Amino acid sequence: MAADSAELGVKAVLGRWEAAWNASDMTAMWQLATDDVHWVNVVGMHWRGKAEVQRAHQFYQDLLFKDRSCKLDEIESIVPLPGGAFVAVVRWAMGGYRRPTGQMRPPGKDRMSLVLVPRGEGLAIAHGANVLIDEEAEAFNPIKR
Amino acid sequence: MAADSAELGVKAVLGRWEAAWNASDMTAMWQLATDDVHWVNVVGMHWRGKAEVQRAHQFYQDLLFKDRSCKLDEIESIVPLPGGAFVAVVRWAMGGYRRPTGQMRPPGKDRMSLVLVPRGEGLAIAHGANVLIDEEAEAFNPIKR
Repeated sequence: MAADSAELGVKAVLGRWEAAWNASDMTAMWQLATDDVHWVNVVGMHWRGKAEVQRAHQFYQDLLFKDRSCKLDEIESIVPLPGGAFVAVVRWAMGGYRRPTGQMRPPGKDRMSLVLVPRGEGLAIAHGANVLIDEEAEAFNPIKR
Repeated sequence: MAADSAELGVKAVLGRWEAAWNASDMTAMWQLATDDVHWVNVVGMHWRGKAEVQRAHQFYQDLLFKDRSCKLDEIESIVPLPGGAFVAVVRWAMGGYRRPTGQMRPPGKDRMSLVLVPRGEGLAIAHGANVLIDEEAEAFNPIKR
């Protein structure tokens, strides 16, 4: 996959991810992943294999995120790996949501590392790790952009 | 690389990582990475390329982590990717440390996703994403082990 088609492949996955999240359609979302996908979420839970990853996301979607919006902010990087795979780092703007306690959580941003492997004409998610961006910590980032 | 040698390769990288962290030797640590390594840290900072990643870690090592211990808790998974690469999820037990405010931060655990690519006889780190494990959230993990 050349650089342009890599970007198209990554964009295709992210577009479907965003649509599936906003439709609360976890089946569509996890069709984007390999059977052996592993996932580490923003609080450090580690889920293994598509069935488990989908079930866990369904649980939080039902509990917390049904009305929480998700919007792609930026594809920050796409780095090629051997064998036609890529690691992409993408930033998502996530809407606020109500916790089970009733308390509202404000909107925020997540930075997601995605490992994408070739599948058919496109790419499939083989791994994801999602980190909440701490806006206050950013003032102490030694690397300024 | 067969499954056994994959595990040996991952263990070799992690052993050197642990030693380099505990010796505050960021040069040794980042020799473990590719030139194009990207890194997302526990507060969601995204660093790009070995020089930048090493400089950022050196900054926090000097500021906060000189006496903070690092011990491998478990290699939780090693999933093969195309082209002889792997994604490993590893859990680290991290010691407490003193913040610039003087306040002590308690010990905790990090869950790190590492993308490892073949280099010479072994493996090199092509990507890392590190997530602080929220022990309180774990009670609400829908996947029990």
